[in-house]
Amino acid sequence: MNAPVALTADLLTQLTAIVGENRIKTDRDSLENWGRDHTKHFDPNPSVIVFPSSTEQVQAIVKLANQSGIAITPSGGRTGLSAGAVAANGEIVVSMDKMNQILEFFPADRMVRIQSGVVTEQLQNYAEQQGMYYPVDFASAGSSQMGGNIGTNAGGIKVIKYGMTRNWVLGLTVVTGKGDLLRLNKGMIKNATGYALQHLFIGGEGTLGIVTEAEIKLERQPHDLQVMVLGVPDFAAIMPVLHAFQSKIDLTAFEFFGQSAMQKVLDHGHVQAPFASECPFYVLLEFEAPYEPIMDAAMELFEHCMEQGWVLDGVMSQSLEQAQNLWRLREDISESIAPFIPYKNDISVLITHVPAFIEEIDAIVANNYPDFEICWFGHIGDGNLHLNILKPAELSKDEFFSRCQVVNKYVFETVKKYDGSISAEHGVGMTKKPYLDYSRSAEEIEYMRALKKVFDPNGIMNPGKLFDL
Amino acid sequence: MNAPVALTADLLTQLTAIVGENRIKTDRDSLENWGRDHTKHFDPNPSVIVFPSSTEQVQAIVKLANQSGIAITPSGGRTGLSAGAVAANGEIVVSMDKMNQILEFFPADRMVRIQSGVVTEQLQNYAEQQGMYYPVDFASAGSSQMGGNIGTNAGGIKVIKYGMTRNWVLGLTVVTGKGDLLRLNKGMIKNATGYALQHLFIGGEGTLGIVTEAEIKLERQPHDLQVMVLGVPDFAAIMPVLHAFQSKIDLTAFEFFGQSAMQKVLDHGHVQAPFASECPFYVLLEFEAPYEPIMDAAMELFEHCMEQGWVLDGVMSQSLEQAQNLWRLREDISESIAPFIPYKNDISVLITHVPAFIEEIDAIVANNYPDFEICWFGHIGDGNLHLNILKPAELSKDEFFSRCQVVNKYVFETVKKYDGSISAEHGVGMTKKPYLDYSRSAEEIEYMRALKKVFDPNGIMNPGKLFDL
Repeated sequence: MNAPVALTADLLTQLTAIVGENRIKTDRDSLENWGRDHTKHFDPNPSVIVFPSSTEQVQAIVKLANQSGIAITPSGGRTGLSAGAVAANGEIVVSMDKMNQILEFFPADRMVRIQSGVVTEQLQNYAEQQGMYYPVDFASAGSSQMGGNIGTNAGGIKVIKYGMTRNWVLGLTVVTGKGDLLRLNKGMIKNATGYALQHLFIGGEGTLGIVTEAEIKLERQPHDLQVMVLGVPDFAAIMPVLHAFQSKIDLTAFEFFGQSAMQKVLDHGHVQAPFASECPFYVLLEFEAPYEPIMDAAMELFEHCMEQGWVLDGVMSQSLEQAQNLWRLREDISESIAPFIPYKNDISVLITHVPAFIEEIDAIVANNYPDFEICWFGHIGDGNLHLNILKPAELSKDEFFSRCQVVNKYVFETVKKYDGSISAEHGVGMTKKPYLDYSRSAEEIEYMRALKKVFDPNGIMNPGKLFDL
Repeated sequence: MNAPVALTADLLTQLTAIVGENRIKTDRDSLENWGRDHTKHFDPNPSVIVFPSSTEQVQAIVKLANQSGIAITPSGGRTGLSAGAVAANGEIVVSMDKMNQILEFFPADRMVRIQSGVVTEQLQNYAEQQGMYYPVDFASAGSSQMGGNIGTNAGGIKVIKYGMTRNWVLGLTVVTGKGDLLRLNKGMIKNATGYALQHLFIGGEGTLGIVTEAEIKLERQPHDLQVMVLGVPDFAAIMPVLHAFQSKIDLTAFEFFGQSAMQKVLDHGHVQAPFASECPFYVLLEFEAPYEPIMDAAMELFEHCMEQGWVLDGVMSQSLEQAQNLWRLREDISESIAPFIPYKNDISVLITHVPAFIEEIDAIVANNYPDFEICWFGHIGDGNLHLNILKPAELSKDEFFSRCQVVNKYVFETVKKYDGSISAEHGVGMTKKPYLDYSRSAEEIEYMRALKKVFDPNGIMNPGKLFDL
């Protein structure tokens, strides 16, 4: 990596000329605020924050950065969990906060054209007003921006039915690291005219360029969503339950969590246990039931799973409020375990391999760190596991994290053994960068470096993220 | 483009050593057969056809080609319609015919790992045997290979619900033009670890490397498919019909065809008119109706569309046989118009723009070539139109095609005006190569060239396709 180039007074004048006096910040609080994301391991240290209001302004900033050699960190809602939007080395932070317009709705195409600073929830609400639905949803939807979702190919809780953000992007307007303006795919469903460049920017973590606008597909609204929470005797039972339900019903969610996670949520005190029995694991499943026979099918499946011994107990929502409360058992986990300073990992393996994978990780932790409590939860219908190790009260935070680094190595070796991903949906950024080779081969990383050079020959776009040059 | 390198006796010996005596062909009939695809405008002229049986053999062939500078044309079922698999300049044709094994089924992941020479229908049948479904379907499914589908991101008749081939690819094993073996994404739903290289190979038309294996997602089988054919008074009426049905029912297909196409199918003589009235345009829609209320909703929607004057007449299938016969009204079009030597174009614009687009093209043809008959049909639910101009009987084939070339320019200018695609699902290959800049900007094409250089620095992979170097 090159040594960071410093911001000169002349450069500041030129940046101000591009975005305007009231769209640039250099005070310490702002540098601190816009220089970081949701991770706290890296100290923010940007030179300046700019708030462009058009694609042309973004392009002018990128051209200026190329001329001067100063780096850029693209910045959205800063809800990232892998330090992909942390500006730690004197970068220009290009915040998309002021590019938050929904530009045009195409009802026949069920599509909307937006600026990339649109907040996820803003898009969800807009879609609802049009009688439509934007299905990518997750805990930080209230502040995450669409540009960030695109940069990390955000997933969330409805992926089993609706897929990742990638699935909903029909077109992108980007300024490449070189300063070229590209309009990619322009909203089309079908377009077989060469390389699908947009798919490099989706999940590219802002290292190839800045997404300024996007064409996003919408979906019809779901009808009569029903939620079930089932208690299961062991992890292995979750697979046949998934298989049984999926063969008859289109699931919109299939989440799981361990008893440890459930207990923390109950202790947190805002929600009640779904049923009296305590079970080693729970699954939450959701599906549309606009027709009575679907409810009958769900009940039959539930009874079948009980008879087979795959399910010990269960409950089905009888109202919207009950459905929401059942969802809280899953959604409140992160908040409920926060006081235990969890060491988080967001990993993915084929669903087929999940039972063996969990067993191995449990054994590794139990053998090496018998005082550590593991809290498993995640989007099991996609093979995506959130592994949270909770800090024992008597251990200092530093000591705990340094021990977890060692556990990490074992975890990632196990991920690699099962051909899995060290980052299912949070991205690589800076926090997973040292571990990238557990999921991508040396050759793949070399190709990524070469692609980076094509789009960003001067290495000014979000340097230090994903991999070092 | 470099001058083609000739095959030497030494090279032939080395190729034979890689694939074995019985897996190499140089006789004239074989060169003719494996050297072309479904297009007939370019004369095949390969040097040799090889039939590797493993990824390692493919890698050895690519390395040999790099050393000698001889080019490679990857070859699947050769059903392509844009000369993407024509070997016209002494290439080694690498046929995947012998790599047609289904390797492993992962029930929990609803996924299958295959070699890329697996025929589409073979995968569809295999999926059915597992109680599952592979939803990408089109006329040439009986001979097209999955590798070719991936290379062109094949679409077809169920895209409105299930999307393109891209949607179903969870992982790819590729040998790059440089000779590196990459296993990309390894079947995961969620994997946020850097650039999604697999998406460059999907739709890359074999210009970056050869796909040897793939992880393919499967879906549950559709239940109780119902088909309706509706006659509409003008093209503009199709949009509100689509909108009305889509707001209540999940459509699995929404196709359209003009009266000209319908008449040709009826004249062809294997299928009957759906109803007595003759209408300017027809739509065929399909949906799952496992529950009675869905049929009621469909009938209500039909009546609503009649009342609004959007629909003149209609019919709903009462049996599987009737459903199949209604589908033939759409699926037999290509075969029925073949005797009229149609000049075909496969284009796409936003659905929003389709009515104006069709009107403009009709006017252009009517003004300039009043003796030409236009036959419109296509996947209107995806904005994908198949424009077929039929040859007037009195015109020679050469004269007709040369006039159509002129029409082509007008058509592509109109496509460009509406930000559309000159190739919705057939790819670019050689036939659309001269027109690529109607759909991709000069900057985009430069980036494509640069990406090609990264994966295939010696330019040996399928040269002369997509763009010239």
